[in-house]
Amino acid sequence: MLYDCIIIGTGAAGVSAAINLKIHEKSFLLIGDADLSAKFRRAELVRNYPGLPDITGAALADAYLLHLQKMGISITDKMVSSAAVTKDRCAVFAGADYYESRTLILATGAAAAGTLPGEEPLVGRGVSYCATCDGGLYRGRDIAVIISSARFEHEVRYLAGLASKVYVYPTYAGAEFSSDNIVMMKSRAAAILSGEDGKVCAVRGTDGEETPVSGVFCLRESVSLSTLLPKLKVEDGRIVVDREMRTNITFVFAAGDCTGRPYQYVKAAGEGNVAAHSVIEYLG
Amino acid sequence: MLYDCIIIGTGAAGVSAAINLKIHEKSFLLIGDADLSAKFRRAELVRNYPGLPDITGAALADAYLLHLQKMGISITDKMVSSAAVTKDRCAVFAGADYYESRTLILATGAAAAGTLPGEEPLVGRGVSYCATCDGGLYRGRDIAVIISSARFEHEVRYLAGLASKVYVYPTYAGAEFSSDNIVMMKSRAAAILSGEDGKVCAVRGTDGEETPVSGVFCLRESVSLSTLLPKLKVEDGRIVVDREMRTNITFVFAAGDCTGRPYQYVKAAGEGNVAAHSVIEYLG
Repeated sequence: MLYDCIIIGTGAAGVSAAINLKIHEKSFLLIGDADLSAKFRRAELVRNYPGLPDITGAALADAYLLHLQKMGISITDKMVSSAAVTKDRCAVFAGADYYESRTLILATGAAAAGTLPGEEPLVGRGVSYCATCDGGLYRGRDIAVIISSARFEHEVRYLAGLASKVYVYPTYAGAEFSSDNIVMMKSRAAAILSGEDGKVCAVRGTDGEETPVSGVFCLRESVSLSTLLPKLKVEDGRIVVDREMRTNITFVFAAGDCTGRPYQYVKAAGEGNVAAHSVIEYLG
Repeated sequence: MLYDCIIIGTGAAGVSAAINLKIHEKSFLLIGDADLSAKFRRAELVRNYPGLPDITGAALADAYLLHLQKMGISITDKMVSSAAVTKDRCAVFAGADYYESRTLILATGAAAAGTLPGEEPLVGRGVSYCATCDGGLYRGRDIAVIISSARFEHEVRYLAGLASKVYVYPTYAGAEFSSDNIVMMKSRAAAILSGEDGKVCAVRGTDGEETPVSGVFCLRESVSLSTLLPKLKVEDGRIVVDREMRTNITFVFAAGDCTGRPYQYVKAAGEGNVAAHSVIEYLG
């Protein structure tokens, strides 16, 4: 199926865009965390979402989920690993799945810590973003996993069933695994190292220790923008957009924190609205 | 008093901006209809304000008013007639009052029907936007009033106490006056005409009939942008802004419908948020 639009991200911008596409009866996929983003829920108190004074991030997320439910919009709970554009359509890869659309709205949130030194040049040479896709390549070998959310813990368990040893570098608190071959690292990952063959050979921790591995899985809420869509114009970590939320790629739009500051719910929601209207205008 | 900012307009953009300036403890005036704009309340059903599904315009306006009240923000209920900028400050004229500020946020909504033919060149030559200011000039003479909202009916009654005859061209339904010297016109005003002395001499109705008058009061929710602030860069009836909601004048920002489509509450609220943050950054 060729969708009218694929929205990547379920923060305020993605949800706002989806609501408008639904009203205009466009076919679309809303891909992201079905519980809305962890960052969305993290806000203790939101004072400046007009009309909902003094609301917690969690309550606002629940209000958004109810809004989606009332409109019959479902979330495709996947992590997008990459996207590609051809002359007239977009392809989005999420895990082992593949979707096509006429337009794309990137609502991926503020870039996370960014990529690690060594990560980008080693994509496809030992660095992977998808356990399901690439796990089989590391059967019986040692790998590292950089994981940003409990949401991806099942992927670690899946990898542990294949690999010999799994060294886990969590970037969130409370990660715990019971398998014998999962080793929790005490330092954070600082860099991914390559050997003479130009492939991954080790991860260096922030403590300087190097752990030899054959592969590294980076399981994060969102992949870096340059990894997601290499042709996309990005400056200072934010997607360059105009007032209509158009990026440098004709049928690719962006909205929310990924377009830059201020990082605010209502700014993101407003931009999602504009992006959706630009998509509707583009579809004609 | 020199305010940090004056916000003109109490639609979604103006209210959103005010909330953020309050949080950042800036001194500001929020000038507009204390009941929020009539247009704000007119929406029968708003389906795309994320978090508040299927809300009426009136209920959303009430939620905004409650939000303002909770934050201790009051509205200065005046109609701004014009603004001016000097090297480093703004002056805002509202009726007979005058306010100064370091920055300005224009959140005046979509331009109304625009000005009438003949209106702009005759400002100060018989065309006025303020009954209180200029009513006295027309004692014992015939005048016309173009009125867009019941909110201004008291000004018509005030003018009727001064003028000989008042010809009223309402642009809303249900206007009614009881004074003997108030004449309700059946057609709409189509143009303002001037005599050989370059001053107002008549109003031409959409039926072609010309009614001789010495002055015309245009009582609208907002004055036209070119009248409001002549140096402001306006294209196709919308204020030209960049992604930070900056206009072509250094310390003047704009947000909401006055910056162009889509005309949507959450787009306006998002832009008000961004404009406020740009003001905060400018103030340093």
